[in-house]
Amino acid sequence: MRKSIAIDMDGVIADEVVQLLTWYERHYGLKIHPNELSGRSEDEVVPEKDAYTKFTKMAGFFRTMPLMPGAVESVKKLSAQYDIYIVSAAMQYPHSLSEKREWLGANFPFISWRNIIFCGDKSIIGTDYMIDDHIKNLDYFKGKTIMFHAFHNVNHNHHTRVNNWDEVLTLMDSGF
Amino acid sequence: MRKSIAIDMDGVIADEVVQLLTWYERHYGLKIHPNELSGRSEDEVVPEKDAYTKFTKMAGFFRTMPLMPGAVESVKKLSAQYDIYIVSAAMQYPHSLSEKREWLGANFPFISWRNIIFCGDKSIIGTDYMIDDHIKNLDYFKGKTIMFHAFHNVNHNHHTRVNNWDEVLTLMDSGF
Repeated sequence: MRKSIAIDMDGVIADEVVQLLTWYERHYGLKIHPNELSGRSEDEVVPEKDAYTKFTKMAGFFRTMPLMPGAVESVKKLSAQYDIYIVSAAMQYPHSLSEKREWLGANFPFISWRNIIFCGDKSIIGTDYMIDDHIKNLDYFKGKTIMFHAFHNVNHNHHTRVNNWDEVLTLMDSGF
Repeated sequence: MRKSIAIDMDGVIADEVVQLLTWYERHYGLKIHPNELSGRSEDEVVPEKDAYTKFTKMAGFFRTMPLMPGAVESVKKLSAQYDIYIVSAAMQYPHSLSEKREWLGANFPFISWRNIIFCGDKSIIGTDYMIDDHIKNLDYFKGKTIMFHAFHNVNHNHHTRVNNWDEVLTLMDSGF
């Protein structure tokens, strides 16, 4: 039987950091390099703590999110062997729902609507694997966990870390 | 540990049949009584097969869906004892996403965004119980299943049937 993988959106297939910093520079006039964020918590990404929440309510923030390098090709490769589910904790941001659905349709047309899940808490997701950048999602998952590298998880090492999509493919090929 | 219940929206907490027949009469001028539907498949509800799909794309169809009698009070009672997740196969109808989120906020304000899931295929939902009117969702569920009565499931009897929300409470109280 084919095994299943739950794949997160923001920070895993969508480059949320690049988007946030681009919009931050556009709206606040201050340029921050992604490398400066390493080890910070998500609340400390930019000086104005409400900037992210503000952007999530603005049209286009989720719909124009850049792709994480290699995400499309890698998810396509994995989908030949695994049942892929895109699982995003989108419910916290009601405005994001239709934009995230549109973004997936445009960038991952090979993922069926049957395999898309927008949720809040991910603890009820019952796939075999989960690829996510958030400890809060991975810690409560019952299957095998893969932690996608992000500035906010650099000090956590109790999940198998991958730094990019090439490393995901290598790990899955190894029979993890 | 508290057990968890996945509760479907359309046909379980939202009265999809009443809404469909009301909109059908408004747009096509033909009145159909809900009792006439018993045993029909979902494709045969109204003579015009594309009516439902048409309505799902129209503003307000999901946002103004009537409540199933007793749903709010019963889900509130269950939430004292169980972790409740509202799980809707909304992804097939992208237009429904924001309206369904809005409807839940208005009618079930005590359900946190953390406990709402909009998905396609429900087979990856890993709760202890599932209350749903669709065989296709219940058949692939790994936990205990409760089939909410609907015109399209009257000829299926391989899941525990409940006819209304009072029966759900009685069943759960019995230690099912």
